Amino acid sequence: MDSQSGQAQAAPPNSDALNFDILPELLGYQLRRAQLRMFNDFAGAMADVSITPGQFGVLVLIEANPGSSQSALARAIGIERSTMVAVIDTLEGRGLVERRASKVDRRSNALVLSEAGAAMMEKLRPIVAGHEDRIAGNLSSAERRQLIDLLTRLPDGPQTK
Amino acid sequence: MDSQSGQAQAAPPNSDALNFDILPELLGYQLRRAQLRMFNDFAGAMADVSITPGQFGVLVLIEANPGSSQSALARAIGIERSTMVAVIDTLEGRGLVERRASKVDRRSNALVLSEAGAAMMEKLRPIVAGHEDRIAGNLSSAERRQLIDLLTRLPDGPQTK
Repeated sequence: MDSQSGQAQAAPPNSDALNFDILPELLGYQLRRAQLRMFNDFAGAMADVSITPGQFGVLVLIEANPGSSQSALARAIGIERSTMVAVIDTLEGRGLVERRASKVDRRSNALVLSEAGAAMMEKLRPIVAGHEDRIAGNLSSAERRQLIDLLTRLPDGPQTK
Repeated sequence: MDSQSGQAQAAPPNSDALNFDILPELLGYQLRRAQLRMFNDFAGAMADVSITPGQFGVLVLIEANPGSSQSALARAIGIERSTMVAVIDTLEGRGLVERRASKVDRRSNALVLSEAGAAMMEKLRPIVAGHEDRIAGNLSSAERRQLIDLLTRLPDGPQTK
């Protein structure tokens, strides 16, 4: 620590009038902030059922693709297989997802929703729809589509693992 | 677990042809995916210096607002104060940020960059600029501005903590 640093230390800036410097112009900063607000709203909407956005996505994929392997789902969503295994562990522990022996590939499990999982999905869909409408409440339907289009065009960069 | 669940278990779907059901139309899903790609590119670009997006944001704010308190920064970025304290702990431990006794409020510390922190910021700015250009590489400058505008219009919902 260098206590002789030349930083000014006058009165602290008013927190409502902080200088954000380059942050507001950074796509990364605005994306993180939007994601944080989205996540908070989702968490609030899901408080009674304790389902995270990631868990919801996995439940949707398993319902729409019964018999998929963990590896296939991980590739589809673009996360590490180990992360997917942890998500499935949680969902299986809650009785929402079942791992069955695959009939076509002995090395992998086939994932399906349990009856409780299917019932949970019926409960979750309208909650998620309400969450989406709240989040997009300030946007016209054209702007909402445009935002989704622009987001999907952000590339996997060469630095991506 | 209900092994009598009525889920079909035919051949598992081809992972390249999974049915994504409603996910692609969900703003939340696309925002999470875009954020994940952005984070991975940022992490790759920052591999040598080990700075996270959150740490970078805090360094920018401290540099632009020397003498701010942890609480003011947490409010500005919209994160929990405890999270901010942890970020500052890390940055202080690396010798990039200093907590000084505030001259105007004995209850809070005044945060400043150390000389090493200021030098780090000089190093980080061009790395972040390159990261941003990579991420927005598929967008025109008008589209890039529009994406930022649309993101800033996503509201803090009533469910937000």
